[in-house]
Amino acid sequence: MLHSPARALLAIISLVSLAGMPARGATPAPARPPAMAPAEIVAAAPDADWTRIDPADLIVMDLAPDIQGSPRRVVIQLLPAPFSQGWIGNIRTLATAHWWDGTSINRVQDNYVVQWGDPDGEDKTRAKPLPAGLARVPQEDYTSKVFAAPEMISRKPDAYAPGTGIDAGWPVGFGKDRMWPLHCYGMVGVGRDMPPDTGSGAELYAVIGHAPRQLDRNIALVGRVIDGMEHLSSLPRGTGEIGFYKTAPERTPILSIRQGSDVPGLPAYQYLATISDSFRRYADARANRRDPFYIRPAGGIDICNLPVPVRRAK
Amino acid sequence: MLHSPARALLAIISLVSLAGMPARGATPAPARPPAMAPAEIVAAAPDADWTRIDPADLIVMDLAPDIQGSPRRVVIQLLPAPFSQGWIGNIRTLATAHWWDGTSINRVQDNYVVQWGDPDGEDKTRAKPLPAGLARVPQEDYTSKVFAAPEMISRKPDAYAPGTGIDAGWPVGFGKDRMWPLHCYGMVGVGRDMPPDTGSGAELYAVIGHAPRQLDRNIALVGRVIDGMEHLSSLPRGTGEIGFYKTAPERTPILSIRQGSDVPGLPAYQYLATISDSFRRYADARANRRDPFYIRPAGGIDICNLPVPVRRAK
Repeated sequence: MLHSPARALLAIISLVSLAGMPARGATPAPARPPAMAPAEIVAAAPDADWTRIDPADLIVMDLAPDIQGSPRRVVIQLLPAPFSQGWIGNIRTLATAHWWDGTSINRVQDNYVVQWGDPDGEDKTRAKPLPAGLARVPQEDYTSKVFAAPEMISRKPDAYAPGTGIDAGWPVGFGKDRMWPLHCYGMVGVGRDMPPDTGSGAELYAVIGHAPRQLDRNIALVGRVIDGMEHLSSLPRGTGEIGFYKTAPERTPILSIRQGSDVPGLPAYQYLATISDSFRRYADARANRRDPFYIRPAGGIDICNLPVPVRRAK
Repeated sequence: MLHSPARALLAIISLVSLAGMPARGATPAPARPPAMAPAEIVAAAPDADWTRIDPADLIVMDLAPDIQGSPRRVVIQLLPAPFSQGWIGNIRTLATAHWWDGTSINRVQDNYVVQWGDPDGEDKTRAKPLPAGLARVPQEDYTSKVFAAPEMISRKPDAYAPGTGIDAGWPVGFGKDRMWPLHCYGMVGVGRDMPPDTGSGAELYAVIGHAPRQLDRNIALVGRVIDGMEHLSSLPRGTGEIGFYKTAPERTPILSIRQGSDVPGLPAYQYLATISDSFRRYADARANRRDPFYIRPAGGIDICNLPVPVRRAK
């Protein structure tokens, strides 16, 4: 016997289509080989379905080598306009000023975030001076005016936003007249104090656990990790309050952070275009696993379980 | 301008209550101090709201010490009946036989799972013999007959299940007449090949990333990590196919796995009872963050973003 609120819920859900996530204006899919896994669809995507990421929109963080002496490079793609451009301008200024060089990763909280910047940033007498010209960005910029619906709209309801989708390769939420990026795994945001406009971009964090979507619209997102995520997610967890390291030697030193256009020999990166047929088939396959291992396709997916494929260009 | 499918979606969503997750039969909340954070509510919960976990329902995995020589202990709570009891019986047999001693962690795939067991398990000529008496459990047991609605039912729709909730401290999905545990962060499941009844329980995995809910009802869950999760989540990622380590030295040795009742000096563990007022307030606060940092409460939460608090008894 189900409890009556559950019955009411089921009645509502039955109105919602169980279908996957069609691209806007998509035509019916061509015949396809049965039972391809999502990764196989991505591997088979033609070059034309991949979109180049401008190196000027990348931030490259080199951590101190690991204990075996291997380099640890983390590559972050910055969000495009109209999202968070005030903070992103600050991040470009900080990178160009080499401000992060010699700072560190100061916090690793399990199933939540890795955070980096000036370990003395909270202490006014010891904080590293910030470069001139940083903007103070208002909290209104946590979201943006919507100019168009996302390229791909989820038909599945979401617990946090009236609507969700993928737009130009980014997970977004939207309401009547605003749109915002989402706190999915690997997304990078701007640490702040109170009030909400105190985050400059000098203190950054990356999501290393289940999507903390409660942060959406409460803090600025500026990008996502597209390469080297394992160098952040596998760091030792901090044993202090909310995952801060208790002592300086536990922190991982940051050798440098640069804009991608200033890094010689950086690979060319590409993401699978949201509007491509490959992406549409990838999204459908992730929402409805029909490859042989699966005996029961889910019939849906939450937006943060649909990571946008990124690759080094061939 | 919103695209018309989004408008349709919004119309449907408007039917769904934006409220949090009330306990079944809950009475109105007593007056409470404003703006407590979820962790503060948990810290203030009276002892009567905590339920003891029987040490016989724990599995204790001791990994080889880390590079500093510190011990690494992982404590896993097994699911209660009616879930997965065939595999859990096998796990008790394997632990009692000390079968895992000398095996290893063989796979760490970022944002997905850590997996352990016999590294040669796939190779019939080299596989470690299993103890006698293991059951072959049918795939029907991935789910269970529902005997009652969960103690707490989410009012938010879910992309993967007709209904979700928390029952006796566990995240569950349910449909008309079945109920099943969910692949949230830290949950532990049974690796398998094809066909679906090939998982004995000797090969186990833990979720270390965003909830891979597509696995629900496709594989057996048997428990969750309640202590020492960081010893799994911070392991170096495997560089081979789907995160398997390429060489034996990369694997982390397992010294022993025992039932909790066979481990001297194990702390007593407790979870916050789903039916307690503290849990109800904790769930409401996580779905509607009103503590000072938040400027915009989400008005909802997905079921895997509501981890059940567990503590060592005072």
